Amino acid sequence: MTRRDEAQAFSELRAALGPAGFLAGDDIPSRNHADSSVLPSQRPLAVLRPASTDEVSAALAIISRHGLAVTTQGGLTGLCGGATPVAGSLALSLERLVGVEEIDGRAMTLTARAGTPLEVMQRAAEAEGFLFPVDFGARGTATAGGIVATNAGGNRVLRYGMTRASVLGLEAVLTDGTVIISTSKMLKNNAGPDLKQLFVGSEGLFGVVTRVVFALQPLPRWTGLALIATRDFEAAADILASARADLGPMLSAFEVMWPDYWTMVTENVPGCRDPFADRHGLYLLIEGHGRDAARDGAAFEAFLEGIYEAGLVDDAMLAQSLTDMEAFWAIRDASAEIEPILGEHESFDVGLPPGEVGRFVEACRAALARELPTSQAVFFGHAADGNIHVMASVPEPGPAGHHAVESVVYGVTRNFSGSVSAEHGIGALKRGWLGHSRSPAEIALMRHLKTTLDPHGLLNPDKVI
Amino acid sequence: MTRRDEAQAFSELRAALGPAGFLAGDDIPSRNHADSSVLPSQRPLAVLRPASTDEVSAALAIISRHGLAVTTQGGLTGLCGGATPVAGSLALSLERLVGVEEIDGRAMTLTARAGTPLEVMQRAAEAEGFLFPVDFGARGTATAGGIVATNAGGNRVLRYGMTRASVLGLEAVLTDGTVIISTSKMLKNNAGPDLKQLFVGSEGLFGVVTRVVFALQPLPRWTGLALIATRDFEAAADILASARADLGPMLSAFEVMWPDYWTMVTENVPGCRDPFADRHGLYLLIEGHGRDAARDGAAFEAFLEGIYEAGLVDDAMLAQSLTDMEAFWAIRDASAEIEPILGEHESFDVGLPPGEVGRFVEACRAALARELPTSQAVFFGHAADGNIHVMASVPEPGPAGHHAVESVVYGVTRNFSGSVSAEHGIGALKRGWLGHSRSPAEIALMRHLKTTLDPHGLLNPDKVI
Repeated sequence: MTRRDEAQAFSELRAALGPAGFLAGDDIPSRNHADSSVLPSQRPLAVLRPASTDEVSAALAIISRHGLAVTTQGGLTGLCGGATPVAGSLALSLERLVGVEEIDGRAMTLTARAGTPLEVMQRAAEAEGFLFPVDFGARGTATAGGIVATNAGGNRVLRYGMTRASVLGLEAVLTDGTVIISTSKMLKNNAGPDLKQLFVGSEGLFGVVTRVVFALQPLPRWTGLALIATRDFEAAADILASARADLGPMLSAFEVMWPDYWTMVTENVPGCRDPFADRHGLYLLIEGHGRDAARDGAAFEAFLEGIYEAGLVDDAMLAQSLTDMEAFWAIRDASAEIEPILGEHESFDVGLPPGEVGRFVEACRAALARELPTSQAVFFGHAADGNIHVMASVPEPGPAGHHAVESVVYGVTRNFSGSVSAEHGIGALKRGWLGHSRSPAEIALMRHLKTTLDPHGLLNPDKVI
Repeated sequence: MTRRDEAQAFSELRAALGPAGFLAGDDIPSRNHADSSVLPSQRPLAVLRPASTDEVSAALAIISRHGLAVTTQGGLTGLCGGATPVAGSLALSLERLVGVEEIDGRAMTLTARAGTPLEVMQRAAEAEGFLFPVDFGARGTATAGGIVATNAGGNRVLRYGMTRASVLGLEAVLTDGTVIISTSKMLKNNAGPDLKQLFVGSEGLFGVVTRVVFALQPLPRWTGLALIATRDFEAAADILASARADLGPMLSAFEVMWPDYWTMVTENVPGCRDPFADRHGLYLLIEGHGRDAARDGAAFEAFLEGIYEAGLVDDAMLAQSLTDMEAFWAIRDASAEIEPILGEHESFDVGLPPGEVGRFVEACRAALARELPTSQAVFFGHAADGNIHVMASVPEPGPAGHHAVESVVYGVTRNFSGSVSAEHGIGALKRGWLGHSRSPAEIALMRHLKTTLDPHGLLNPDKVI
């Protein structure tokens, strides 16, 4: 593309989107240079900020006609570089396409434009007496379109599933500007292949999500929280089986922390003191959500008594107040606080068959000790989901050190038929490791779909595959 | 294709599949001529019965090379003609690819080959202390591959979702014989686009499902069931809102029957007597699944007291025994028994935004009375799912009569932005009505995907799109 073609494309985009919708040159905000990953920031050619689905459609049609590449941006909270612009691409930010359009109490749905922040949707739902089922730390900035495009996980996956499970309908724009409107409020719709699934979790490879219909849930009225010390992961697995059987769908979180993580947090992070007198083999945080404090509280206590009588509990604390609950969760949520202690490190988000979690952690720890003895690693995660986070310091600063740690952890992940990305996606940073979790036939099919839906590779080039 | 080419293809297929795997001529069983729909039966050119994924792959590679068409068959319980062979096609039956391969208690997964009957999977899960989440009437013959390919609904959608929600992984064979192995046991796997979604609910357009990993659930330990008479659908919607708020995930069924259905069943079907002394405006069957008889039974009774005190209940019966439960469910399940009373009729499976169900039924009844005054119609369904079944007698026997009834009911469905198929799929019988529920852009994208994945249109030709 010559400068003259680019100037023509820019002129058309400016005309289609207006001055607030097209920012070039010195007007490009630095926030559009990068997402929240460690990928180096990159100034886009220009920032497109369409304020309607029609403007998204018009912009993509122009982009497509001129063969320009575009990187889609939501709240820029991604950790894998999926929304950091590729050199020479435009940024397409949904930040002006905002607002909760409707809450339908009978259908229990919330319809929002793509750029609406997660927390705005959560509050809007709560004001009408409903729970928005997706939640995670970046709720203030992550957006409706972003959580759908990445199939975000978070704190409530055990209870409500990944974001995909709550998407009833969506609207998306294809690379040529075609608008696919599948904004159904229906729970059941088997009229042909379910096209919306194509856009959920595809990190913008196939189209740009512009509007989403989410399923809401009833607000829980009671919460129970217990911190359990037990001997090892086998015991934890037995406790999980009891929790599922006794609590059923009340079980809303089952988090696990290994002693390396527990000790580093409770010895270093202000406000995270160890509530137990002794050291233990493994620590669990178990949460129940219910509808009636007396009945569900009794069920929760009966479950705890059951695992105690079965000899599975070394020590236990049941939260007696909101303060207790915050203190318990603070230990689990302190991973960001220990980053300075680890120094330069790599954070992993590994998915595993749930039965393999304990053995994976042992194997991973052993492999790191053997191959990178100077690396310090801590292990914690969502045990019931088979989702383990590993934070491991790099043996030497710089790319080679990161690659060395990745090789070890992802190598063990592959041996356990695990996923190199349970919930964070692939983006740019994990592209090189996709083959550790997907077969050549799967990757070929992904590429085939990409070529079909975006033949010139203009949407999010150099991401995922 | 000449006879000689066909003979060559048959010879290769016979060699690849063995004598038990290739049935031609007089050996073709009549059962492979049709599924359970009203579509006229059609003898396939031959029946392929591969006994392994490798044999499915080999067969499809041969079929593809020779440009033969093939109709995939599971348990043949479909109601829309999706598995009745197209004239001139082979039938590919998964009936020999059977067996539960593994139940992983830690991961709570069941892995089965495509031809395994649903009931076999249910029993295998129960023997290990788990619930198989999908259930419907044809459980004895419907298969693992069939419920996945059609994204089957059924009795427990309100609680556990459609079949898609329980598919953790699958293996499928593409038209050229490529095997896509995505048989993960992971609950969370965001390593690239989720390819398995492409095969769930696509009625075999894109590939043949050969193996599935299903998520299991804890077995419920307590069931409560109530029959409620109320005045109208507005009151029913208020009762549903209370049920969701008070029972939360305990709520496992919320079925609605209009007086036309209720009267026809209780006055005509043996064993289905009306338990109420008076006639009422609407009848509900509400079920709860719990873990503790005392606690959850008390919660269920508290919910019933609440809706009674709110003035929403005209009369109510709480099941006191298994016999009561069977009697209550018998009324809801008697739709097959009233077929002789209606005479020649059409059965509909309409999906609606849940808030529109009451108005849809009124509008549909009025439209039928106005346009086809001799047609008799009854209404019932899964109210919480927005899934209504309509059975309407045809004004005159034969295709014109069926088309007349379909025009009225699907016309009203389109006006309510509903789905012409909530759970039964499109198959061959509803192809002409797909445009009532999907936009031209959606149908074009379905066709584009079909051309990409099956360029010569050999898999299930003349189905769905």
